[in-house]
Amino acid sequence: MNELDTDDQPGYIERQVRRHRIGDTTIASDNVGQEWPVALVYNGISHAVMMCTPRDLEAFAVGFSITEGIVERGSDIHDIEVFFRDSEDAVLPHAEVHLQVVQQAFVALKDKRRALAGRTGCGVCGIESIELLDLQPERVPDTGFLARVADDAIARAARELPAHQQLTKLTGGLHAAAWCDANGAVRYAFEDVGRHNALDKLIGHLILNREDTTQGFVFLSSRASYELVRKSARVGVPMVVTISAPTSLAIAIAKEANLRLVSFAREKSFVEYDVE
Amino acid sequence: MNELDTDDQPGYIERQVRRHRIGDTTIASDNVGQEWPVALVYNGISHAVMMCTPRDLEAFAVGFSITEGIVERGSDIHDIEVFFRDSEDAVLPHAEVHLQVVQQAFVALKDKRRALAGRTGCGVCGIESIELLDLQPERVPDTGFLARVADDAIARAARELPAHQQLTKLTGGLHAAAWCDANGAVRYAFEDVGRHNALDKLIGHLILNREDTTQGFVFLSSRASYELVRKSARVGVPMVVTISAPTSLAIAIAKEANLRLVSFAREKSFVEYDVE
Repeated sequence: MNELDTDDQPGYIERQVRRHRIGDTTIASDNVGQEWPVALVYNGISHAVMMCTPRDLEAFAVGFSITEGIVERGSDIHDIEVFFRDSEDAVLPHAEVHLQVVQQAFVALKDKRRALAGRTGCGVCGIESIELLDLQPERVPDTGFLARVADDAIARAARELPAHQQLTKLTGGLHAAAWCDANGAVRYAFEDVGRHNALDKLIGHLILNREDTTQGFVFLSSRASYELVRKSARVGVPMVVTISAPTSLAIAIAKEANLRLVSFAREKSFVEYDVE
Repeated sequence: MNELDTDDQPGYIERQVRRHRIGDTTIASDNVGQEWPVALVYNGISHAVMMCTPRDLEAFAVGFSITEGIVERGSDIHDIEVFFRDSEDAVLPHAEVHLQVVQQAFVALKDKRRALAGRTGCGVCGIESIELLDLQPERVPDTGFLARVADDAIARAARELPAHQQLTKLTGGLHAAAWCDANGAVRYAFEDVGRHNALDKLIGHLILNREDTTQGFVFLSSRASYELVRKSARVGVPMVVTISAPTSLAIAIAKEANLRLVSFAREKSFVEYDVE
């Protein structure tokens, strides 16, 4: 194992590129989004490795732990340490996040692991058969937030988001997850090579900052698949807005969770599915 | 369990939508990409559930089995049956693909499952610790294909692809994976809510058709992450072209595999990373 490095990573690296344009080739420098294996280690036991942009990993670990149901609440996590392993001789730069969680969560995790013995872990977070699939989302409580959302909130969030996508500007290809208030003002935004990771970073940050996750909405630069809706429902987010299309299951899960799902969000238009 | 249905699914469903445009709201019909849990069952044992568009599932199952290393070659699969479970009272429409594989592959799969006992399966196909992570890709053989690729092949593929994205046209949001010849002509294209699934469908189709996977290139409507490069390398694909950005690990894995990776492919330009 290489020496530990605890400096945060920039989220992108510089690479030499060859640009081809009709009849013309130039060599230049360009930036690429960092994709690293990131191991999540609970009470000393490695539990999962995610392919992730190695920035904001503390928030990521908190968000993942909560949206995947490993802990119930932020206070169930006693301590988090992030280690980057990026020395010159590293075969593969990677990171480890060590979490100390309450004994109850750790016992539940160990029991879950035992029950899952034999899984190979492809697909739905390692689910191996349909019978084990539980797609029943948490029901989002009605706190009256949706009634307070301004008419132009979605348009405003769509307009403001690009200014928060610094890594996308540099690399041309990361996903963003933003937290917006009832007026559509972007309060926080996180980026990652994976859209689920970007959402976990955002939710983790909200939890770390003791924000009320029922009093705002999530705005995503991607499509809506069921996992993004389900992760949001788990912390009571009342509305998820995405720039692109939803899947059939995202629509079904949102309805089941009583979560408002908005698609194809632009400055001048948006779409809602499965209305009556 | 509901009654079996073996009719192929269309890949999209119709939903009522409410379209909001400044000061105006209309109700209309629109199409949404189907996202279904699809269980892969090997010799009677359920192995993995993938969230997938329920079309071309035979090709998907063959591609997945090969790119995930469950079987070595197409002839290791003796039989495939696809069942759709979509009756009215189904809590969740889903599909099952039953594969009969050679005894050797089944024994290896069972051994692998035993070795993985305790995994919870999030992240890199269920890998739970960095030590278990094997990112060493297969080395792509040099068959001389790259030297035969026409100068305008990438431009032609970029121009032709949209005509093959029927589901994307209907829903606005699926991924496509296409197989192109040395002149950039699109020979086959598959679509899915997941880009890894689209690629697995394409590779499975090539295998089922006994096409030479070293004599063509893959064109993807998405970004390039390491998994797409690795899956392609496993069957000896010499070149992967994507419409959007690569990640740092996709570039590293492509280099290691001796696979040509092309990014930001447009009709008039494209980019190659990590050149010397």
